[in-house]
Amino acid sequence: MADAVTPRDEDYSQWYQDVVRNGQLAENSPARGCMIIKPNGMALWENMRDQLDQMFKDTGHQNYYFPLFIPERYMEREAEHVEGFAKECAVVTHSRLTQDEEGDLVPDPESELGENYIVRPTSETIIWDTYSKWIQSYRDLPLLYNQWANVVRWEMRPRLFLRTAEFLWQEGHTAHATETEAVEEAERMLDVYTTFAEEYMAMPVLQGRKTESERFPGAVDTYCIEAMMQDGKALQAGTSHFLGQNFAKAFDCTFTNEDNEEEYVWATSWGVSTRLIGGLIMTHSDDQGLVLPPKLAPHQVVIVPLFFDDDQEGPVMETCERLQERLEDHGIRVKMDQNHTQSPGWRFSEHELRGVPLRLAIGPRDLENDNVEMARRDTQEKEVVPQDGIAERVSDTLDDIQHALHERAQDRQADNTRVVEDYDAFREVIGRGGFAWAHWDGTPETEARIQEETSATIRLIPFDREDHEEGEDMLTGEPSEGRVLFAQAY
Amino acid sequence: MADAVTPRDEDYSQWYQDVVRNGQLAENSPARGCMIIKPNGMALWENMRDQLDQMFKDTGHQNYYFPLFIPERYMEREAEHVEGFAKECAVVTHSRLTQDEEGDLVPDPESELGENYIVRPTSETIIWDTYSKWIQSYRDLPLLYNQWANVVRWEMRPRLFLRTAEFLWQEGHTAHATETEAVEEAERMLDVYTTFAEEYMAMPVLQGRKTESERFPGAVDTYCIEAMMQDGKALQAGTSHFLGQNFAKAFDCTFTNEDNEEEYVWATSWGVSTRLIGGLIMTHSDDQGLVLPPKLAPHQVVIVPLFFDDDQEGPVMETCERLQERLEDHGIRVKMDQNHTQSPGWRFSEHELRGVPLRLAIGPRDLENDNVEMARRDTQEKEVVPQDGIAERVSDTLDDIQHALHERAQDRQADNTRVVEDYDAFREVIGRGGFAWAHWDGTPETEARIQEETSATIRLIPFDREDHEEGEDMLTGEPSEGRVLFAQAY
Repeated sequence: MADAVTPRDEDYSQWYQDVVRNGQLAENSPARGCMIIKPNGMALWENMRDQLDQMFKDTGHQNYYFPLFIPERYMEREAEHVEGFAKECAVVTHSRLTQDEEGDLVPDPESELGENYIVRPTSETIIWDTYSKWIQSYRDLPLLYNQWANVVRWEMRPRLFLRTAEFLWQEGHTAHATETEAVEEAERMLDVYTTFAEEYMAMPVLQGRKTESERFPGAVDTYCIEAMMQDGKALQAGTSHFLGQNFAKAFDCTFTNEDNEEEYVWATSWGVSTRLIGGLIMTHSDDQGLVLPPKLAPHQVVIVPLFFDDDQEGPVMETCERLQERLEDHGIRVKMDQNHTQSPGWRFSEHELRGVPLRLAIGPRDLENDNVEMARRDTQEKEVVPQDGIAERVSDTLDDIQHALHERAQDRQADNTRVVEDYDAFREVIGRGGFAWAHWDGTPETEARIQEETSATIRLIPFDREDHEEGEDMLTGEPSEGRVLFAQAY
Repeated sequence: MADAVTPRDEDYSQWYQDVVRNGQLAENSPARGCMIIKPNGMALWENMRDQLDQMFKDTGHQNYYFPLFIPERYMEREAEHVEGFAKECAVVTHSRLTQDEEGDLVPDPESELGENYIVRPTSETIIWDTYSKWIQSYRDLPLLYNQWANVVRWEMRPRLFLRTAEFLWQEGHTAHATETEAVEEAERMLDVYTTFAEEYMAMPVLQGRKTESERFPGAVDTYCIEAMMQDGKALQAGTSHFLGQNFAKAFDCTFTNEDNEEEYVWATSWGVSTRLIGGLIMTHSDDQGLVLPPKLAPHQVVIVPLFFDDDQEGPVMETCERLQERLEDHGIRVKMDQNHTQSPGWRFSEHELRGVPLRLAIGPRDLENDNVEMARRDTQEKEVVPQDGIAERVSDTLDDIQHALHERAQDRQADNTRVVEDYDAFREVIGRGGFAWAHWDGTPETEARIQEETSATIRLIPFDREDHEEGEDMLTGEPSEGRVLFAQAY
């Protein structure tokens, strides 16, 4: 039997680790801070990737692939960018190992590189250097491209999926002739992320822009989606950046516009990563382990054949295989449990820990009655249902689960979000874990002081700020142009 | 208009570069030896990946993902492996950049790593270290896993797709309880590669095993598929390794067998890479540029609407869009050419250079006659065909092209392959570019001497060697157990 899952109430952080481990999603690796994504985790990521990829293609984007290595000097070109990433770069300095006098492997001194490479933490620099060659005229624009890749940002306190030195992600990099077009693109991709989070991950998110201190290094504006985890903390689930002409200027990327004038190109970049899996886990999972939304689950249904002697095996397996075929004909992803040597309890628990949304168990008695036992992972409800019409019923139930998960998360977010008027109320909300809408005077100083005192950061400034009333900063009493969202964050 | 393509006869190597560039497949990057895979190249690779991935899943494999970084000391564990890869490793020695006195970015001396990491050139070491934790009992076996990843092997003389410092690939790593099972797995995956090469790439290949000197470092046996390029050279298109218990011993990976005895685990690994794209190009492309097999082409059909005044635009576009819909309903991948400002000749040439297998052009006159002009990329044949039944006709023609490409390549391979009896004939065949079946005495010394004198290497020892007659080495006159395949190789 797999290890037990520590209850959330007891130790939330241990619970998270237990869910990841028992869900067979990932584990730590011998390369510090890097994770091994296990088959169940990888199948989940592939489903997320394929869905997002389709949405990128539907909005006119194509994939390409840029190198893993970025010449060191490229990082110097955009001042804020180097400031933001220089402190967490893996640096490649040699191209060969050799054996030293004791026979140990060491970098061969003779292979020292003339110029060091950094392992990409993000690819704006090398991409904009190339765009400066690809773009001459307004006719070359827009460029609407994306890449799926691994990136490395050295992490001092790694946590599986949430913060790892290497992670998998996609990074979109687009080039435009006008500011308006670029802003629209950045907004469009934030909407794509929002749709994906809400409709596929069943994870409600809030949209907004970042304050200056939380902005992507090199961006003019960073748009984000933020989700509430079960402990009331926020997870930044995706960002879309309007980069202005910053990278175009840094890499001298100009184009001739329709009036035959030379202009710098306008840019966006946007990305989501395997971090989303951390968000998915902390949105839906429970004390029995992983809970996955049906639209993304590697297997949506597991069929568990139950028989207790050899005579029963044939008929039970036959029925199970027929059911599997009918479900698969409906486009449902089915796993057949073949663990016949284990007890039913062990097998049920195993599938629960792995987050399979729906379990169908079939034993000899079900055969007699043409029934099947159907159990929902999210509510743990069991129901005996007829085999007749099973595909439609399963399909409907999967839809129900998808909606129920979203609704539950939505309710939790609403329950733990407060509009606060003063700093005491604010500390109270933040202290027990939750989102607080509060007035802020707009200065980085106040923002920093609040973070120091409460560990809460400004997660976003809402886009529809004009709808919000003006007020006074809860801490300084200075004028505020509208409420912003505060929370502790992952 | 795009640059012209240098004819093969004139300069084969320049021809290859021209095809890659004009086909918009890839270009060199500022990171030395690394390539930028452009959207047309990436779409091609994604089609190859998706097809292979399906074949891996159909043979029972699942994907996972291991870290990019491998601790230096892991490389020491398998003696031949370190020997084979130490000379081409990117070594990460620092985790941070800082500015020196002149303000230049340099690796921060304080961030020097206690243990260096190498960027994976292949992942046997870190994977077998992990397998030693995953595997306890015969019940845990087999493990049938694969990963899609980027790897780095420092290259002194890089060529796009064929030899790049970073490349994309898949690496399968399986673990088995018995030698027989592992050998069967290695053979099965070689067959998968063979099917993929022949049926999807339309690239005929020969199967066999490598000599000791060409074997994968750490393998007991390396199986390979070899294809003939248009210049008569060989390209190793995929390898599948029977690793014996070498990595299990190096990483102390044992299991308890059914008789309750402790045994080392048996292993295979197998991989293909973006190198296949180089093989695809050099198998089918011609002096007009890229030629792609329909099963893998990003777009199988391009529709080119032709109109010469505004009145014509509406009706022509309407017909084109209706055609597109009908083709897409048949599962055909269609591109609509929107380059209306360019001349028809420019547009036709552009699609030829990009290797789109079939072009449909529709102008005002075709509208009157309910016709469409269909042009095959491979034969350059044009034909006026009725719009009625176009989807079936296109579908059949794509099948024809797929088969014709394979047949042409097969014929070329046969025409340029010789059974040779003496060294003069051998030198003649190798000299003008071709495959030579010749007797070899089985020693690395003779193999090395032949390579030195002719640049030809033994590409493979055929599996069905018992069918081959015995003989005498063409060079030394020593006894030979059967002919082996020689060629110059990429």
